[in-house]
Amino acid sequence: MNIPRSSFPRIVIIGGGFAGIALAKKLRNKNVQVVLLDKHNYHTFQPLLYQVATGGLEAGSIAYPIRKVVQDYDNFYFRLAQVKEIDTDAKKVTADIGDLYYDYLVIATGSKTNYFGNKEIEKNSMAMKTIPQSLNIRSLILENFEQALLTNDINERLSLMNFVIVGGGPTGVELAGALAEMKKAILPKDYPDLDVRKMEINLIQGTDKILDAMSPKASRKAEDFLSGLGVSIWKNVRVTNYDGKTVTTNSDLTFESATVIWTAGVKGAAIKGLKPEALAGNERIKVDEFNQVLGYENIFAIGDIAVMEGDKHPMGHPMMAQPALQQGTLLAQNIIKKIQKQKMKPFVYNDKGSMATIGRNKAVVDLPRWHFNGVFAWFVWMFVHLFSLIGFKNKAVVFMNWVYNYIRFDREGRLIIRPYKKKSAQSFTPDEI
Amino acid sequence: MNIPRSSFPRIVIIGGGFAGIALAKKLRNKNVQVVLLDKHNYHTFQPLLYQVATGGLEAGSIAYPIRKVVQDYDNFYFRLAQVKEIDTDAKKVTADIGDLYYDYLVIATGSKTNYFGNKEIEKNSMAMKTIPQSLNIRSLILENFEQALLTNDINERLSLMNFVIVGGGPTGVELAGALAEMKKAILPKDYPDLDVRKMEINLIQGTDKILDAMSPKASRKAEDFLSGLGVSIWKNVRVTNYDGKTVTTNSDLTFESATVIWTAGVKGAAIKGLKPEALAGNERIKVDEFNQVLGYENIFAIGDIAVMEGDKHPMGHPMMAQPALQQGTLLAQNIIKKIQKQKMKPFVYNDKGSMATIGRNKAVVDLPRWHFNGVFAWFVWMFVHLFSLIGFKNKAVVFMNWVYNYIRFDREGRLIIRPYKKKSAQSFTPDEI
Repeated sequence: MNIPRSSFPRIVIIGGGFAGIALAKKLRNKNVQVVLLDKHNYHTFQPLLYQVATGGLEAGSIAYPIRKVVQDYDNFYFRLAQVKEIDTDAKKVTADIGDLYYDYLVIATGSKTNYFGNKEIEKNSMAMKTIPQSLNIRSLILENFEQALLTNDINERLSLMNFVIVGGGPTGVELAGALAEMKKAILPKDYPDLDVRKMEINLIQGTDKILDAMSPKASRKAEDFLSGLGVSIWKNVRVTNYDGKTVTTNSDLTFESATVIWTAGVKGAAIKGLKPEALAGNERIKVDEFNQVLGYENIFAIGDIAVMEGDKHPMGHPMMAQPALQQGTLLAQNIIKKIQKQKMKPFVYNDKGSMATIGRNKAVVDLPRWHFNGVFAWFVWMFVHLFSLIGFKNKAVVFMNWVYNYIRFDREGRLIIRPYKKKSAQSFTPDEI
Repeated sequence: MNIPRSSFPRIVIIGGGFAGIALAKKLRNKNVQVVLLDKHNYHTFQPLLYQVATGGLEAGSIAYPIRKVVQDYDNFYFRLAQVKEIDTDAKKVTADIGDLYYDYLVIATGSKTNYFGNKEIEKNSMAMKTIPQSLNIRSLILENFEQALLTNDINERLSLMNFVIVGGGPTGVELAGALAEMKKAILPKDYPDLDVRKMEINLIQGTDKILDAMSPKASRKAEDFLSGLGVSIWKNVRVTNYDGKTVTTNSDLTFESATVIWTAGVKGAAIKGLKPEALAGNERIKVDEFNQVLGYENIFAIGDIAVMEGDKHPMGHPMMAQPALQQGTLLAQNIIKKIQKQKMKPFVYNDKGSMATIGRNKAVVDLPRWHFNGVFAWFVWMFVHLFSLIGFKNKAVVFMNWVYNYIRFDREGRLIIRPYKKKSAQSFTPDEI
């Protein structure tokens, strides 16, 4: 990869998500050489992907060039690379652009959509973990409506206007809410010759409540909000298949839908080459309280991919931005300590709470000791997300878009820049898009 | 196409560019039925495509949903459609989504890139007439730099950093200037381990001056500006081929380049089905002073595709926004007059002048009686373009981006959202992208 050796130890970070970027920032101008690898040349602010998918924000507003983050850092290298495997004996990373030797390796590859082995669902449904995927959803929604106008077959039309979201976690809930807002404020104006009241939004959840990682209060309130917006919520229902036309479930319930968005599960974005003992379920990686991968002295894992053993959460910390940021930040200190042969500091998760927005003036917020919802929660949600975006310009543009969308009940990003139906289905394999 | 007949005559407009949209707006709520067809669901503000290509603006900032333009218009239909041909006897348009009968037809399909029959150039070079094409250029520029970092072959590296722009019209000049700004302010910071001084920008012009539709003064000044920014200008040179590696010309001059951007010619975006007598050279359409296609009573052509006979310009009006807007606006009146069997008003082009921007604080402006350039011209250029964008939000977002880019010497849109090299080359045919 054409990276010169320096006299300092080399830390290779795989992944420029919340964890990887937090770590990189804190390693700035320390006595180490850092190489950051990512398959995109930008950091993605994943919590707002659903707004890109529904035309509320442009892709560029939630993406930030990684090279810009690390511009002024000494002895710091970024490479656009897809890592294929690691060789822990040779201390080597193999990527599509060549090999790279490390002294310390940090795996921060995050998570990807989990279809639980169902290839047909994987092939026919839409995922929403990356910006290209969100843009595909945006195109597909709009292409569906254009097509609904053309057909004389009532069943086809209903199927084109039936959106099934599988998974009632924050992603599914926020997307369902945004679609409901589009149904209410935008689509009837854009498609006056279509009966948009016939549009259906079905949210399917496998357990007995949506947002089930949040408080019972938040969950109930989110359900009320969604129902009020016309979203049909199906609880204790598991999707068993989707052949591109019909969604079948573990009950008698079926849905005829041209669009299934799958937010029902994530798994670790694994990399080949670790010993089986280091692997947790769900393709994640077992780490100790220092985020050190079990059985390795010089390999760490942070963020979604890491399952911390001995933690009070049996499945590790929640696969969200906060644990990733906190682990990345602490690991920077700990790697430096380790190099200096000092004692590392164990990770303690500071749970700042969680939140989800459902629509205009509607959000739920769980703080450690306090739950609230409604307009104030919605403002808190906006403030927190705005504040968390990297870069002044992105903050300003997102703020302006939100103000505009709020005042005008509008979303102007309803643009089919790259049609999905016509081309992407054949051209891209799921992992690449 | 599922469009009900009304008691009013039906006007079908093909194309939602400057001409088509201007016409559509003026036909609002008149005693006609209007059907607007476009292969995109958005209007593109083409003069700013080069800023999308160079990461200064997001695609969404220069695109505007066509359905939003016509939202409140009565008896108005938009269809996302690619028109294949017309049958003037049957008064029928055939598109990928079906057939449509018209009473009056307006062809406003604009222009597309002209490779003058050279298939190899068409296959290997980049065009910049649409948003997807501009995003492809953006991706390719950035992918080139990422690749330049990896190679040990000095010739390959130089080729990856050598940008050849063919055509010294406004598009080529503005793109060359924007690339030069990137070379100066952004790339050295983003790629500290690359010798960005080795980056070359070559602008090739077939005639003896660049911007040759503008005043000699503007042309000379633009040349000075570009040279000052480090752009090499080659005049009286014609590109004869590009095989993906080497650009050959009608002289001994050759260029080893991984990126050739072809802005050297446009031709009409023709539609099959008109009589040969109605066709002008360059796949354009002959019209009379009412924009009526020669030999047809009920077919009109406006904008880039139309060549007005008997005009003082032998090639018709310049293929730019202004004539398109003015023709679209007048045609709305004239069609109404025609329906009411009144006399139509001949088109007289009101030449408001032309302008081009070369870079930060550098632009040239030709008004009918006055030429100026420099900082003031640059502000005029910005004001005019900002004012011409459709929609308040686009204006505001573009303005904010410009202020930010100006103050920070930055362009944050350097995002490879859809890699070009890896996929698009195979997946898309030139006309579709």
